[in-house]
This record gives sequence, C-alpha cells and structure tokens, in this order.
Amino acid sequence: MHDVYFATGNLNKFKEADEIFKRNIDRVTLKHFNFVHREIRSDSLEEIAREAVAAAYAQLRKPVFVEDTGLFIDALNGFPGTYSAWVQKKIGCIGILKLMKGEKKRSARFETCIAFNNGEETHVFHGRCEGTIAEEERGKSGFGYDSIFVPEGETTTFAENIELKNKCSHRYKSLLELICYLKNV
Amino acid sequence: MHDVYFATGNLNKFKEADEIFKRNIDRVTLKHFNFVHREIRSDSLEEIAREAVAAAYAQLRKPVFVEDTGLFIDALNGFPGTYSAWVQKKIGCIGILKLMKGEKKRSARFETCIAFNNGEETHVFHGRCEGTIAEEERGKSGFGYDSIFVPEGETTTFAENIELKNKCSHRYKSLLELICYLKNV
Repeated sequence: MHDVYFATGNLNKFKEADEIFKRNIDRVTLKHFNFVHREIRSDSLEEIAREAVAAAYAQLRKPVFVEDTGLFIDALNGFPGTYSAWVQKKIGCIGILKLMKGEKKRSARFETCIAFNNGEETHVFHGRCEGTIAEEERGKSGFGYDSIFVPEGETTTFAENIELKNKCSHRYKSLLELICYLKNV
Repeated sequence: MHDVYFATGNLNKFKEADEIFKRNIDRVTLKHFNFVHREIRSDSLEEIAREAVAAAYAQLRKPVFVEDTGLFIDALNGFPGTYSAWVQKKIGCIGILKLMKGEKKRSARFETCIAFNNGEETHVFHGRCEGTIAEEERGKSGFGYDSIFVPEGETTTFAENIELKNKCSHRYKSLLELICYLKNV
C-alpha cells in the first residue's frame, strides 16, 4: 500500500480520478496535491504535462502525476485544444456552439495526457475519446464541455450520462493506463 | 546615434514599428532581432512582455524591446485577449464574427504593452485603442484583426484605412511613448 498524489487545482478532476482509483486498484491511495501552476504555452498536451509534473515533483518530492486535457474540434482547426479551460471561462459552451452553428463536420475528440513522476523518471499515458459536438447543450452532470460532447456510438452527451463518461472517457482511459502501470511496479 | 532592437518573430510588427521610428526619431536606428520565444500564460500583457524582454536581453545583451498586443472584446469577457495571435490562427476573424453575431454590445479595445530593457532596468509603455467590432470583414491592409476593428469615432476598419491605423493605433501610441523616453535618455 502506498500513496500517489494527483497534482491539480481542479477538484472535479480529483474526484473523478479518485472514484476510478477506488474501483480499480486496492493497494494505492490517491491523494490530492493542491497544485497551482502556470502551464507553459504549447499545442502539445504531453509537453505541457511533462513540464508540469517536473514542477510538481520538485515541490512535493513524492510520487505524483498531473493530467492535461483538451477538446480538439476538427472544423475549428483543433480549437480550443490545449487552451480548453481558458476558452471555457471566456466564451463557454455557448461560444463553441456559435462557432459550430451550421457546421456539418462536427467531429471532435477529447484527449488527456497524464505524466507521472516517481522521482526517477517520468511516464506518460494517453487517453482519447472520439465523438461529435452536439447542436445544443444537453445535461447537467460533469463540467467543462461535457454538455456538448457526444462520444462515438452514443446519442447522449457526457453531461446527460455521467456513468457513461466515467466508463469510456479520455480521462478514464488514461487513468486506467496509469493504474495498470502502478499495479506492475 | 545608437541602435535599439525590436525582438519579435512577426515581421509585420517590425515593419510597422520601423516606419514609426523613421518618422519620429532621428538618432536611434531600429533593428530587428528575430526572436522566437515561448511566452508565458497570463491574462496580463505587461507580465508577458516583462518576462519576454528579460529573455530577449539575456540572449542579445543590447538595448531591446518586445511588445505584446491583444484584442479585448467586452461581450466575450475579454476574449481573445492575450491569446489573440493563437485564436487568430485557429478560428480567424470569421470565428470572432460568429461569436459576435446578433450581439449589440460590440465594444472592444486593442491594447499593446512594450517592455524595453537597456541592461539596467525594464521600462514599460502602454498603448490602447478603443473601438467596436464590425459586423463583417472589411478591407485588405494590415493583419490579424485589423479587418474587423473600427476605432472609436471612425467608420472604417483599420484594414480599410491603414494610414489611420498607423496614426492612432495602440501599437503606435505605445511606440511613441517609447520613442519619447528614448529621446530623453
């Protein structure tokens, strides 16, 4: 039994990860490291996550991971991408829907990159969830862009079906990869 | 007579500044320092410019300035702000017009912050230009958001009247402040 820290300033993300850890791994306890860090500017989630976890480990000196997630919309050249949280604060889901109004090509994906640092090396885990941008906001669960994202093969948004999200999302997939790694070390 | 370097990766900005220097100051020659730098993430132009000029001076070791400019649209909570160049690449002026469709409150401002470092200290100069977002793109001159920005008291966009831009713009005002400072040292 040992502890692993999730460095994030976003409690929603921690809670989501904590549930996934509890369901999938016994001998690791997930702890919250309230980490406020200015990310670098980059169009690469992995580059952002690698830099951030190095900073987190330098502060904490214990096994720690960070995650960075973005929504990449094909018709918008990958916007809002690695700036998804900032764009959400400024123009919200309503802004994204305006930008997509009348647009037939609605494909998009959520991508997550987790970077884990155990003090010796950094391991990186990726998760991806393909889907489409809905025509309007639907559902109240989740956060961020969950109310406008419909995962591939489904008809409901993540915000309408949070159990679906917690079983198939980009974050879930990348966390499972991390958990699989932790089980084998 | 001495040289001052403008550190920028954007040749449009250098040319604009060079013309303003030539018209307004004799004893300083503006030179281009082709500076590729990853800016920090911040909602403050001044913070971004101060960090960038420190990096530029560390490389060049000669009097140098950087500038950072953003378009701040009130109805969009200041979007695209300090991420204006990135947003322009992703969704362009067309994206901004979509976000503003049907919006009555069209006020916006361009802001520029120049940070000048002479090896001893950093001086900061601000320029601002109030205006509104046009209903459609107009004009071919300039770059970036010039085709959708109408300065206060005018009816044409910057892109329709580049001479107007070079006489009243945010960048012009901040450069004049810098020039005024250089004349007095």
